[in-house]
Amino acid sequence: MKIKRNQLCGNLNKSHVGNVVKLNGWINTRRDLGGITFVDLRDRYGIIQVRFDSDLPEKILKIVKQLNMEDVIAVEGEVHKRPEGSVNKNMPTGEIEVIVKDFEMLNKSKPTPFEIKKRETGSENLRLKYRYLDLRTKELQKNILIRHNALQSTREFLSGEKFMEIETPFFIKSTPEGARDFVVPSRVNLGKFYALPQSPQTFKQLLMISGFDKYFQIVKCFRDEDLRADRQPEFTQIDMEMSFIDESDIQNISEKMLAHIFKNTIGKEISIPFPKITYHKAMEKYGNDSPDTRFEMMIENVEDFAKQTNFKIFHSAMENNSVVRALKVKNGSEFSRKDIDELIELAKRYGTKGLAYVKYNNNEFQSGISKFIDEKSGKILVDKLNLTDNDLILFMADKWKVSLTVLGSIRKYLGKKMDLINNEEISALWVTDFPLFEYNEEENRYQSMHHPFTSPNEEGWKYLESDPAKVKSRAYDVVINGQEIGGGSIRIHSREKQERIFSALNISDEEANRKFGFLLNAFEYGAPPHGGIAFGFDRLVAILAGEETIREVIAFPKTTTAQSLMIGSPDIIDEKQLKELGLKIETEK
Amino acid sequence: MKIKRNQLCGNLNKSHVGNVVKLNGWINTRRDLGGITFVDLRDRYGIIQVRFDSDLPEKILKIVKQLNMEDVIAVEGEVHKRPEGSVNKNMPTGEIEVIVKDFEMLNKSKPTPFEIKKRETGSENLRLKYRYLDLRTKELQKNILIRHNALQSTREFLSGEKFMEIETPFFIKSTPEGARDFVVPSRVNLGKFYALPQSPQTFKQLLMISGFDKYFQIVKCFRDEDLRADRQPEFTQIDMEMSFIDESDIQNISEKMLAHIFKNTIGKEISIPFPKITYHKAMEKYGNDSPDTRFEMMIENVEDFAKQTNFKIFHSAMENNSVVRALKVKNGSEFSRKDIDELIELAKRYGTKGLAYVKYNNNEFQSGISKFIDEKSGKILVDKLNLTDNDLILFMADKWKVSLTVLGSIRKYLGKKMDLINNEEISALWVTDFPLFEYNEEENRYQSMHHPFTSPNEEGWKYLESDPAKVKSRAYDVVINGQEIGGGSIRIHSREKQERIFSALNISDEEANRKFGFLLNAFEYGAPPHGGIAFGFDRLVAILAGEETIREVIAFPKTTTAQSLMIGSPDIIDEKQLKELGLKIETEK
Repeated sequence: MKIKRNQLCGNLNKSHVGNVVKLNGWINTRRDLGGITFVDLRDRYGIIQVRFDSDLPEKILKIVKQLNMEDVIAVEGEVHKRPEGSVNKNMPTGEIEVIVKDFEMLNKSKPTPFEIKKRETGSENLRLKYRYLDLRTKELQKNILIRHNALQSTREFLSGEKFMEIETPFFIKSTPEGARDFVVPSRVNLGKFYALPQSPQTFKQLLMISGFDKYFQIVKCFRDEDLRADRQPEFTQIDMEMSFIDESDIQNISEKMLAHIFKNTIGKEISIPFPKITYHKAMEKYGNDSPDTRFEMMIENVEDFAKQTNFKIFHSAMENNSVVRALKVKNGSEFSRKDIDELIELAKRYGTKGLAYVKYNNNEFQSGISKFIDEKSGKILVDKLNLTDNDLILFMADKWKVSLTVLGSIRKYLGKKMDLINNEEISALWVTDFPLFEYNEEENRYQSMHHPFTSPNEEGWKYLESDPAKVKSRAYDVVINGQEIGGGSIRIHSREKQERIFSALNISDEEANRKFGFLLNAFEYGAPPHGGIAFGFDRLVAILAGEETIREVIAFPKTTTAQSLMIGSPDIIDEKQLKELGLKIETEK
Repeated sequence: MKIKRNQLCGNLNKSHVGNVVKLNGWINTRRDLGGITFVDLRDRYGIIQVRFDSDLPEKILKIVKQLNMEDVIAVEGEVHKRPEGSVNKNMPTGEIEVIVKDFEMLNKSKPTPFEIKKRETGSENLRLKYRYLDLRTKELQKNILIRHNALQSTREFLSGEKFMEIETPFFIKSTPEGARDFVVPSRVNLGKFYALPQSPQTFKQLLMISGFDKYFQIVKCFRDEDLRADRQPEFTQIDMEMSFIDESDIQNISEKMLAHIFKNTIGKEISIPFPKITYHKAMEKYGNDSPDTRFEMMIENVEDFAKQTNFKIFHSAMENNSVVRALKVKNGSEFSRKDIDELIELAKRYGTKGLAYVKYNNNEFQSGISKFIDEKSGKILVDKLNLTDNDLILFMADKWKVSLTVLGSIRKYLGKKMDLINNEEISALWVTDFPLFEYNEEENRYQSMHHPFTSPNEEGWKYLESDPAKVKSRAYDVVINGQEIGGGSIRIHSREKQERIFSALNISDEEANRKFGFLLNAFEYGAPPHGGIAFGFDRLVAILAGEETIREVIAFPKTTTAQSLMIGSPDIIDEKQLKELGLKIETEK
């Protein structure tokens, strides 16, 4: 490089007029105008107009004539005010231009497979293959900068609050519960494997036992899941743990941290403290344990109404341990039969048989189950749901969780479809009082709703063995705009209590000791009361950047089939390497 | 927890006298004195004396009598000045004590397997097994805090210099060159594997092509090496890359960063810029490409002398493409035969046949090869090495690299043994002008001295094909106190040039495209000139903490056999999991 930059394209302004500057960058646009060539030169910091006049040496002019988009060039020239009339008010550097005196070609570019200035000219898969070009677009440049700022402001905040950043190992041991682990075969210890962490859970608890009373880390975690829409096999989390605290300490510091991050990355104030809602209420009102509270449309218990109707399905549901709930859709009475069929299809995905509905117009019930509604039952419904003209009412009569989940999904779907959501609003809340366990019908046993290190609440210990379904945990989730972005709990810190939990989960002593003996042992050497939280960093950045998918805020994401289209991974490995690892691929499944 | 702390043990001082405080912590010591129990209570921030007087309720006193070291307790009490005569000047909180009014037992501790106050009461393996207890010791608390501060000050500096922190993927593709990759079998893509990165090298180059002109990351990397003394299978590096720069830009920013880190973690000023030495000179003078310049004792070329002696071994060496070099050891003439035998043993480890020596005393040569030295040759040696009384001179006559490496190792060994090193001194330097390739005798081919993306210097391109051994690279290493802590280079940024390097390395087009096709392609879309550097963060922190081994600055290190004695990893995995991965363990080797 003969001409090494001493200025940045985006940093130049009127105060530089008269300066001779050296610039390096990419050709964003090029146009010729009566012997003069104008180039918009781009670097990370912005774009500046560069002018090649016709009095430049022929050698330079010849190259300039052949300049293509995305060529990398170096220029030396003087900063000038643009002539009257050619000022570009849409460009931060639009009042000036650089008149070139010397030029160096740094590297040519072939025509790019999609336009950097207009990324939608390439499909997502094409752009994933050429991710290094997609990363040049202003959209991804902006997102990656937001991510950088979020990383810095998170650490700055936590470090200022005396949290210590401590790196936990990536090569750990395969553990039960939760999703599948990715494993790494060991060559030095043949036949054995490391597991990659799904989270540094046990290590951060050990750090509390070590006396580091405030820990954090922004760390990659790994989860071998089946294909799910917006998941990545590797993801980043903000991981925190504290000793000598209760729920309120974790919640306070988390709120302050989130407010700090929003302020410092996108300049948005979010109000703290966040409201709290119990798991039970979130399900009853929103049909979702991560409710989007940016719009109304609440679910209601309409069993008083249901009893009064002649609708047998309602009656038999209530007699069979199921519930009846309703969702009122304002202006929904205009929905066509097709619109409603769509909602019914959505409901069926959750394994329910159907969805009942009725419309309310001119003080009367129409279509759907209207024929089962008499005056008395109708009045109960009008009062309960505060019905007015043009309302559509959707009913579910099924098991508690199914009914609410279905209505919650419909609520979410309609919130978007009917444009009820203010995308500028940030709505954050805590969900608390989760059940400690959920029943796994397939495996016919209880499993942890969060993870087995979560402490029940004080009352819960009483019926841990007698009525596990009734036990509430000391867990809490943070939800922003209907997405769970963090979750944590107060942990168990005694061996005896941890063993009771393992036993309630049907984990044998032998298995508990083999997998978690180190933690059980550690609890016996002065383990302090402790708890923590972890935030999904990719999801958080997606919210900051206003993006729907986390692929838009990860520099080099994988597809939903866990592949990199750019480098072509995963890939086969050499026979030699397999042999060194003592492994053989079983071709038949 | 009834008594949740509102103060920290180490933060209390005279200004708190009269305050009622709540403290949580571990029992560091306990002593009884005429009905009064004194406890030194410890938290992350320090130690405070806590006094249980005999007028406390019997219920509390009973528990206090049974308190053990490392029990976790909570106390509420008033801060008092200690009585005259019982002030402890060795303790930051030694002028005060807390007189307990209320007490809560938080958790008991069994007797620890070694003393937290005296960690040498446990062997390293015992302490690795109980790492969570070892981490309570003041030594590791200090080291982990230094590491935390080093992490923060590195990012703070680089972020301030407009470097962007960008996370690169952990699941990549197996690559040739360098050490073995760890691999991760894919369940979703059966029979295929991800590789874990030995460094984010190709990704940071792609980020430069994407226009992020200053990148950094503090990132875990993985290397499947055979057992080596102070290596870990997973390690942390500070990774950096810049566009539109040359060597000086990388070196300047690295020096400023290191100075910032030393200042902000251990308060030490280091002077910049660092001196530079070429690889050739480092080898010729120090016998090492990461020379420890904290002490003299230089290697000299003594071939003029060697020619003049009657010593046939010297003559035949010089006739057979070998060299003769000498190391002068001041006061070494007092070395016993046993001392010298030790040096000879050390030499033999490098595959050389032996080491010649001679002593110089009272203006004459004694023992060793003295009989081959006549007056004329003796004078040449005296002048060349500036010999004075009590000198020992060690000679090597072997291939260039062997001779220098042996004398370099002896120099290093003697520097320590003879206590020539000022451990307070920080001596940093750059090593430059490395050969691009080194010849691998076993595989009978050239291989990259750094990695295949390193650019030769301008002159080197000329004889890349004709005389590869002569080609110098644009690589540079940073050495502190004789340890390489960082290395980098200006990279190649053109497809054609990169292909010439692959070809010089005997990597076929087919292999190059399969492994690095994405990078070769990327070079064709406007790749800017770029270069970078990476620092071994564990080693850097070890230097900051004054520790010999990196295990002392990693929270949860592995042994030299890559095992965790604490959690027992690596471990076997379930048959079911193996089956899902399509793998079978081959028992016979």
